[in-house]
Amino acid sequence: MLCFLTSSLNPMRIHGVCCNLHRSAFRIILSSPQGDLERTAQANGTKAIYQAIDVQDEGSIATALDILKFDLRHPICGFVSCAAISGESDACDYPADVFRHILDVNISGTFLLARAIANEMHQASISGSMVLIASMSGHVSNRGINTSAYNASKAAIHQLARSLAAEWGHPQNTFLGSTATATNPHPSMAPRKEYPTVRVNTLSPGHIDTPLSEAARVRGLTEEWASQNMLGRISQPEEYRAPVIFLLGDGSSYMTGAVSTLCWILLS
Amino acid sequence: MLCFLTSSLNPMRIHGVCCNLHRSAFRIILSSPQGDLERTAQANGTKAIYQAIDVQDEGSIATALDILKFDLRHPICGFVSCAAISGESDACDYPADVFRHILDVNISGTFLLARAIANEMHQASISGSMVLIASMSGHVSNRGINTSAYNASKAAIHQLARSLAAEWGHPQNTFLGSTATATNPHPSMAPRKEYPTVRVNTLSPGHIDTPLSEAARVRGLTEEWASQNMLGRISQPEEYRAPVIFLLGDGSSYMTGAVSTLCWILLS
Amino acid sequence: MLCFLTSSLNPMRIHGVCCNLHRSAFRIILSSPQGDLERTAQANGTKAIYQAIDVQDEGSIATALDILKFDLRHPICGFVSCAAISGESDACDYPADVFRHILDVNISGTFLLARAIANEMHQASISGSMVLIASMSGHVSNRGINTSAYNASKAAIHQLARSLAAEWGHPQNTFLGSTATATNPHPSMAPRKEYPTVRVNTLSPGHIDTPLSEAARVRGLTEEWASQNMLGRISQPEEYRAPVIFLLGDGSSYMTGAVSTLCWILLS
Amino acid sequence: MLCFLTSSLNPMRIHGVCCNLHRSAFRIILSSPQGDLERTAQANGTKAIYQAIDVQDEGSIATALDILKFDLRHPICGFVSCAAISGESDACDYPADVFRHILDVNISGTFLLARAIANEMHQASISGSMVLIASMSGHVSNRGINTSAYNASKAAIHQLARSLAAEWGHPQNTFLGSTATATNPHPSMAPRKEYPTVRVNTLSPGHIDTPLSEAARVRGLTEEWASQNMLGRISQPEEYRAPVIFLLGDGSSYMTGAVSTLCWILLS
Repeated sequence: MLCFLTSSLNPMRIHGVCCNLHRSAFRIILSSPQGDLERTAQANGTKAIYQAIDVQDEGSIATALDILKFDLRHPICGFVSCAAISGESDACDYPADVFRHILDVNISGTFLLARAIANEMHQASISGSMVLIASMSGHVSNRGINTSAYNASKAAIHQLARSLAAEWGHPQNTFLGSTATATNPHPSMAPRKEYPTVRVNTLSPGHIDTPLSEAARVRGLTEEWASQNMLGRISQPEEYRAPVIFLLGDGSSYMTGAVSTLCWILLS
Repeated sequence: MLCFLTSSLNPMRIHGVCCNLHRSAFRIILSSPQGDLERTAQANGTKAIYQAIDVQDEGSIATALDILKFDLRHPICGFVSCAAISGESDACDYPADVFRHILDVNISGTFLLARAIANEMHQASISGSMVLIASMSGHVSNRGINTSAYNASKAAIHQLARSLAAEWGHPQNTFLGSTATATNPHPSMAPRKEYPTVRVNTLSPGHIDTPLSEAARVRGLTEEWASQNMLGRISQPEEYRAPVIFLLGDGSSYMTGAVSTLCWILLS
Repeated sequence: MLCFLTSSLNPMRIHGVCCNLHRSAFRIILSSPQGDLERTAQANGTKAIYQAIDVQDEGSIATALDILKFDLRHPICGFVSCAAISGESDACDYPADVFRHILDVNISGTFLLARAIANEMHQASISGSMVLIASMSGHVSNRGINTSAYNASKAAIHQLARSLAAEWGHPQNTFLGSTATATNPHPSMAPRKEYPTVRVNTLSPGHIDTPLSEAARVRGLTEEWASQNMLGRISQPEEYRAPVIFLLGDGSSYMTGAVSTLCWILLS
Repeated sequence: MLCFLTSSLNPMRIHGVCCNLHRSAFRIILSSPQGDLERTAQANGTKAIYQAIDVQDEGSIATALDILKFDLRHPICGFVSCAAISGESDACDYPADVFRHILDVNISGTFLLARAIANEMHQASISGSMVLIASMSGHVSNRGINTSAYNASKAAIHQLARSLAAEWGHPQNTFLGSTATATNPHPSMAPRKEYPTVRVNTLSPGHIDTPLSEAARVRGLTEEWASQNMLGRISQPEEYRAPVIFLLGDGSSYMTGAVSTLCWILLS
């Protein structure tokens, strides 16, 4: 299975996902700032092609896919979106440009990538599966940590996935035509082209133990989070491998638009 | 109770909300493109002050509040955010700039308004209540209508409300300090100032019968939606009055971060 | 509006609900072990008719309604179900008969009452509204307190309400006929009778400060719960008045099958 | 991995689950009315031990486990609960005894089985994983089919799983002692024994194409359900294999109390 992944800024998290894909004999196309991924792939007896990408830029995404496709013998049939940034700030002090930047990378960036890959799948006329990494923070309000932009963006990913799952799941899900708007004054009434199903699901990680969480550990947050968790601990990056593989593969053939939550928290 | 409302582009919806506020002896400050709201208020024996506003512009919001406050004898203690736009387009054809514009008006616009009002409440040292109008489309994937940007933005509103509810609900909800980031390299470790509680809830309307839904009626969608609804009909704008009043007033004193859904649909 | 309420064993909770109904000029029929409710009603300038009832017994419910109706000039158009019991026990030690008793009172008892009232509404050919009191414990796993039977029963109430809302919301919600089973070997294929809409919603209280919670207070649980709550406190019985009234009345005309949650908790 | 499964009355469903376990080299203990399961296991090169069981009877469960353990060299570390019955009846006509029977088999039966297995795991001092089969009907109100008892029972399973997940996830999740009640007048204040984690998750199938659904097909419901589904079809029993295996195995090590939904429906 030929998969396309975007990394977060978190090297451990992408590492966690990649190792698992290697072991499952997935062939991966990586788009990550981490140069050592090719070496990791090689060490696991597979091949990874690295390509830098700006997820906010349609042109950058198109160029990256063109370059990557030059090296590929099979069409891409899997996609894992890990691209996301966060930032901690009280809502009343949140710089508006930072708030917007987080929304744009996390929501629009994910959207532009997902549809670029869907178009690839449509052109190849193959079924595919996408996993959009969301977050526990898209479901609940994180205790103590003020990250309103991140939280909002991750809830948006849940609903974006559901919308894309409906659009790409079956032609019956879209009524003929659309209401004319300023940006679409003369909507086509022609029947839409039909494509094989592209499934879109989300995965909502809980707190993860990574180098990036070192600051949280120093502040005592990691311990606090563990004390609130049903399992009494935060998660390891490796624990996201199998869920990603499961959602990408045929084993989840009847899942689309679904939210898989890891690390359900305790509630008082 | 002195309330601040933003309208959607939908004159009937804002009208529905306003009439109810009038009858409940609320005094309202309106920010709407509809000039006839002052007349509506007068006809109902209350006063409404109109002020145009650009919800994407912090400066415009600040200026509008300054002008409005000049006329007010009491601090604002209620806020209803109706500002939202939508657009129907297949995800694969969605113009990126339209997609982003919808996210920015609906999420960032709502955020900038909500915190401007929260700051007013904090400065006046009074408790307040906010109602952010979200949508059924933030919970479910609308059948047949491809509005991925709108859907994602409305789910973001649910989670934004939950985040703001936590931040403005009680000082215990925020841990001391924050993790340094590029945009906040030296976070303050000083205890935060404490303010009276500001509650933040969302209301998720279902399909509404308005002039704007005329196009949907012509396409047969209204009938389709009614056939899927538990009550066998779409809703009237007037049916949102009482829910808004209930969430704004003291009767919902133990509700914050909550999602109130109107028009739950049938599921097969 | 003529309403029928069942009490929990919690005198403060029923008191909270009743006072509010009185002040809103509702006329109430009470079914509660608390004899002082008639005096409370009288003190508030209204009338309450008390009738003991065994919610697990269809015959007892029918008899109570017959007796009550003898005194009524208007048909019952509202119903609030507060009947519920709980019990704290580790799942591995839970006496099976206690587990079952809690399920039966809370789920079957609520069901038998709700449909007895629905039949009254159907016979009178009037619209009605029901509020089934569920619980935060039907959504989340309560921290520290092991009440698996109660939790399961309250989630069942959410879904029971949704099912009844669909059945009693509109005739289109029920397909013609039904699949034959051992208990229904020859299902009728005749069109069902049509009735005015009966709306069914649930209300999910959070922790409430009542005499019954004294034990929790002594154990330090009340303080723990307050420390986890977005508002930094547990709730007062009075805070459930307005939500009940809102859901019973016409202001919530487009709400059915909906879950209203009070006291949303903080999540880490 | 040694697993214990209970079947539903649906031979195809249990067959679907078993085949997958066979191929994944699970060793299964079956408790099913279907005698051909031993042959199925043998044909797949594994061994299945069959034992009839009455899920409503603690004694029957204990006896079955005693008999089965006599043949086992390893402790049971997995459990899949498929035991459930349904019945279609309008709420207003539902025979009270049938309503109660469905609740008792589906909720109490599942509970008694789950804790019997948890006690086995606790005694063997090993970690384990349970999958309680719930249903889409525990989340949504099925269109057209009036099955209020089944729906309520399946929502109860979601919440039962969450409660058991908390109790069996980590000792920190249970406060010391408990409030005295009539059934537990002198609760112990002794610290609870600590055991390895037992994870408890639910799986919510959508409509499944089985021999039992033949009646639904004849009535045209299957086609209706497919027309409402995001994937344009109902599911095959085989599509539940991988999800069950995933939740039972170590790949889902950070999932407990989680709900996995298959076959998310379209909403209008």
